[in-house]
Amino acid sequence: MENFADRLIAAIEEKGSPACVGIDPRPELIPAEITKHSRQRGEAGARVAAVLAFSREILEIVAGHVAVVKPQVAFYEALGAAGLMAYAETVRAAGKRGLLVIGDVKRSDIGSTAQAYAASHLRELPNGDEVGAFTADAVTVNPYLGSDGVEPFIEAAAEEGRGVFVLVKTSNPSSAEFQDLKVEGGRELFVEVADKVNEWGGGLIGERGYSAVGAVVGATYPEQASRLRTIMPKAYFLVPGYGAQGGSAKDTAPCFNNDGLGAVVNSSRGIIYAWTRPPYKEQYGERRWREAVEAAAKDMAADLSEM
Amino acid sequence: MENFADRLIAAIEEKGSPACVGIDPRPELIPAEITKHSRQRGEAGARVAAVLAFSREILEIVAGHVAVVKPQVAFYEALGAAGLMAYAETVRAAGKRGLLVIGDVKRSDIGSTAQAYAASHLRELPNGDEVGAFTADAVTVNPYLGSDGVEPFIEAAAEEGRGVFVLVKTSNPSSAEFQDLKVEGGRELFVEVADKVNEWGGGLIGERGYSAVGAVVGATYPEQASRLRTIMPKAYFLVPGYGAQGGSAKDTAPCFNNDGLGAVVNSSRGIIYAWTRPPYKEQYGERRWREAVEAAAKDMAADLSEM
Repeated sequence: MENFADRLIAAIEEKGSPACVGIDPRPELIPAEITKHSRQRGEAGARVAAVLAFSREILEIVAGHVAVVKPQVAFYEALGAAGLMAYAETVRAAGKRGLLVIGDVKRSDIGSTAQAYAASHLRELPNGDEVGAFTADAVTVNPYLGSDGVEPFIEAAAEEGRGVFVLVKTSNPSSAEFQDLKVEGGRELFVEVADKVNEWGGGLIGERGYSAVGAVVGATYPEQASRLRTIMPKAYFLVPGYGAQGGSAKDTAPCFNNDGLGAVVNSSRGIIYAWTRPPYKEQYGERRWREAVEAAAKDMAADLSEM
Repeated sequence: MENFADRLIAAIEEKGSPACVGIDPRPELIPAEITKHSRQRGEAGARVAAVLAFSREILEIVAGHVAVVKPQVAFYEALGAAGLMAYAETVRAAGKRGLLVIGDVKRSDIGSTAQAYAASHLRELPNGDEVGAFTADAVTVNPYLGSDGVEPFIEAAAEEGRGVFVLVKTSNPSSAEFQDLKVEGGRELFVEVADKVNEWGGGLIGERGYSAVGAVVGATYPEQASRLRTIMPKAYFLVPGYGAQGGSAKDTAPCFNNDGLGAVVNSSRGIIYAWTRPPYKEQYGERRWREAVEAAAKDMAADLSEM
């Protein structure tokens, strides 16, 4: 069974860039060209059809330029059980295109329940049933419940050759509220979590020196990222916050090790809705939205390949 | 729009007990009488059919004895998108029986994504489409991302007359790892989270004096629960850990205020698999599993009504 970190590095090296495209399908932002084909199914059904069609198109456009995609399950879950069928189909379609899939699910619960989530997102469904399975190459996990909420995901990752990214320092404005609290000894809570990530991932180091247990570290906090890079030298970082959230390629630099490895950098809105934002809006507009998405994915991949 | 806390209190007073039954359908524990009817659909389909049939039976049995149920979405999610259709049907079936439903989803994400989760679990689907909607009366939410990850749930709760229970001190063995860390000033992280719960819930106090923003506080840590009761006098506590996790009615006592209100106490395995555990195992066995579940629900409701 190949270690997830080794698979991830091989995929990044093949594409020549650590770029990841986040798939956040918001019905109100999907091009009219797609939504108009789905109208006959009633509003709820039309939204699901449009979300799935848009997700598939995005995968097709970006597959030539990036190695990794990160579908955000919340945008599918917002459409109920049918939306999650579209999530399952998106994950499967990405795999068929040779893309590595990080399911952005941020799950966690007490031990026996965390096992059920881990089975859902990191194992195959019983009897090889593929339709409706959420099985990704890796998932994001929330650490608030401590080891017994995280370990079932790590066990599943170890057994299935898959990966886990633990939320350490998230990219959002209020991430400081709890994550930056100083605990006794003077270190922040996110540093305590980082120490645990080292512990949880210690048994899953691949041939290239990285663990299948990684960390989510926002590009929006480069100073903290720089410290976390030193504290967790063997953890792969999943770095949100590049692009629409304000992070630049320079801001992601502290997330990489000197070997040029150690981080996969995500952009969602900046790529998949590129035609709604400068400079692609002026150049392409909605009519040429596919070209805008492709140009943005290409530009991001090139921007980050120079890191 | 009636405040969720007022609805919760009215429902508890009508049934005369703060008991909540957790619906954690594990395919391997479902009575053979149910699973044998589902075999013809292939293994994956059979599991989903059995999980839904079992959930419906549990609702029917307990509806006369308790006011609140807490389906755990992870056990449905473990069966993929079809499993989540069964979750949606379970939530709807509970509502039709007049039960209040706390969706145990423990979701959280950055602001715009948390909005999508909140829409999924606390709002109706677009166009009134009911099939596949997860809309519960309240949900559980993880606080690690801070205010902008929690507020979208609170906004939805405010607008829809629904509720939120924020994880404060969870019932699992490793909850101390991060939640009990002392932060500068000497208070634990869970106390910092409790302060925020007061802040988040301050605008949603109902006529009975409780907020629609509550807290998850494990019965397994009565000393901490006692302190949290004082810190968050207006928060309703959702209390896991009674029964199979080791907590007794006495352990839940610190979760109540002097008015006899302030807590809803959950038991999952101890009720829905009562025939596999003493004393119900000896008295009923699997053949009479429905009677065992009903006796356990009745006994729990009575045990807690004396609080």
